[in-house]
Amino acid sequence: MNYDPANYHGTRVLVTGGLGFIGSNLAHRLVALGAQVTILDALLPQNFGNMNNLDGIQGKVEVVVDDIRNSDAMKRLVVEKDFIFNFAGQVNYIFGMDDPKLDFDISCLGHLTLLEACRQCNPMARLVFSSTRMVYGRLPELPVSENAPLDPLTIYGIHKLTGERYHRLYSLVHHIPAVSLRITNPFGPRQNVRAGKYGIVNWFLTQAMRGETLRIFGEGKQLRDYIYIDDLIEVILRVAMLPGLEGQVYNAGMGRGTIFREMVESVLNAARAGTVEYVEWPANYQSIESGDFVADINLLENAIGYRPATTLSDGLVRTAEFYRKAGILQGGPATPR
Amino acid sequence: MNYDPANYHGTRVLVTGGLGFIGSNLAHRLVALGAQVTILDALLPQNFGNMNNLDGIQGKVEVVVDDIRNSDAMKRLVVEKDFIFNFAGQVNYIFGMDDPKLDFDISCLGHLTLLEACRQCNPMARLVFSSTRMVYGRLPELPVSENAPLDPLTIYGIHKLTGERYHRLYSLVHHIPAVSLRITNPFGPRQNVRAGKYGIVNWFLTQAMRGETLRIFGEGKQLRDYIYIDDLIEVILRVAMLPGLEGQVYNAGMGRGTIFREMVESVLNAARAGTVEYVEWPANYQSIESGDFVADINLLENAIGYRPATTLSDGLVRTAEFYRKAGILQGGPATPR
Repeated sequence: MNYDPANYHGTRVLVTGGLGFIGSNLAHRLVALGAQVTILDALLPQNFGNMNNLDGIQGKVEVVVDDIRNSDAMKRLVVEKDFIFNFAGQVNYIFGMDDPKLDFDISCLGHLTLLEACRQCNPMARLVFSSTRMVYGRLPELPVSENAPLDPLTIYGIHKLTGERYHRLYSLVHHIPAVSLRITNPFGPRQNVRAGKYGIVNWFLTQAMRGETLRIFGEGKQLRDYIYIDDLIEVILRVAMLPGLEGQVYNAGMGRGTIFREMVESVLNAARAGTVEYVEWPANYQSIESGDFVADINLLENAIGYRPATTLSDGLVRTAEFYRKAGILQGGPATPR
Repeated sequence: MNYDPANYHGTRVLVTGGLGFIGSNLAHRLVALGAQVTILDALLPQNFGNMNNLDGIQGKVEVVVDDIRNSDAMKRLVVEKDFIFNFAGQVNYIFGMDDPKLDFDISCLGHLTLLEACRQCNPMARLVFSSTRMVYGRLPELPVSENAPLDPLTIYGIHKLTGERYHRLYSLVHHIPAVSLRITNPFGPRQNVRAGKYGIVNWFLTQAMRGETLRIFGEGKQLRDYIYIDDLIEVILRVAMLPGLEGQVYNAGMGRGTIFREMVESVLNAARAGTVEYVEWPANYQSIESGDFVADINLLENAIGYRPATTLSDGLVRTAEFYRKAGILQGGPATPR
């Protein structure tokens, strides 16, 4: 395989959910590579798309505030795009349990609408869909390969899996090239830090940087696979560009497990502040707590010739640096709404 | 396990999709067992719910024409039910490919609405959900066990799988007892015979009984697992009643493979008329043709102490007899709309 990021120069790209964590980081990278970037974001109140995430590239990207559920808008937006990064969707996995019908509407119907728009108006566009490790069941054998049993225990996981299957179906049957990534626990600049449910690492980091006390549920022994956002973006760019991956699904993680309390130690080191307190699991979290998770990323590495390498500690130091520069701790411009 | 069908006597039962093939046969059996049966059917034009399917039990069942997508109706209907057989949904797997968004609406949203109604108004009701063998991928290892890779190649299959996962999630997380059955190729009285896509066996049988020519795509070598409707009803009644199956998913087939052209021979024998013609596969069918299929039903048999035993030939003879009595070939009362 010959992946050259320079091939993104001059390409026309749509990023759905482009004001969110992954989408906005991708947009920054694509602008740096010389792509023509259109961002679509619905700015739904329960999500955290944020115009501040475009600081530094504002004016260099087109921003459309609309919804992937809007069929007419999607038909207009997919036309003449070379790549579509479909990262729109719910980000709060607890939310879906409380209001499954709204989650369904946002997380399933939207993707079907986008894929139908591609089928009708631009079946050549190359798609990448952001799925999640939460499509796997509880207590899988570690590391978890793509062939592990799929038994999602959240509405969020069920709907992400449905989204994956749509992308695979449209790839196999309608020949729309689409790849899905089962993303583990991403962290890094531009992730929302309002609550732990949107990404515990960033939330902890900003708490610690403010000198606050981090609350850890249970003993903090669970294994997690944390991937630094820049590494994830590299994975995304490669799966979109490289031929032969159409219709496939890949784990996108670091491929390494970190014990939760070790992650917390790394957070405190990067923050150079903060303390820790251990508390009981809340009852409603325990029933959907998914247990240890480490992704097997061999299939991905073989497919794209790349393996994420940024350590958790390094990624946290870079993220802390980003927060300091952006003034996020003082309520600066990058502070989420 | 001690399954006694007499335990259905006096129970209050809701059958969604109760005017369709499986639902109406179940209603007949439940009435015979002394259950109080409420049927819900939306009578959607692209499906084939049919009041004639209640011939013989009309007046003995309550029929509500409404839709499982109607949250208020579902909240009223689930209350005080002991069993809910959730058989509503799209029946035409080609249809979903042409209009995926409508299929999505009917086949996913409806089930979520029903489950939410149960969660809020009657979490004790025991549910059975009709899924399909089409949740499995193409070319699986035969016989296909429940652990085989899930890779549906139709919108119909994707949405059925999503429905399964909803039922499993609500069982595991919200403690609503629900079992899903991956039904193979059911046949028998009361199946729609308007087109092969609703059940090829019955369609062929009525064609043959009228002395027409059956058109077989390709060489007719594919293996299928045909289950006679009475056997399927027995499976359904057992999984609903027996304890300990909550949250599980079982194959529901005969557990035997029949070569397509042998099925056709059996049809001609039962019909005592008809001829055969071999033709090419239509292009749009081939991409979603799922290949050979035989279900492994050992898990089911171990769970319910029953294994379907009616042969294809015997089932066809009984079905032909039903058609003759019902006058379906002369446009009699059982003729589908």
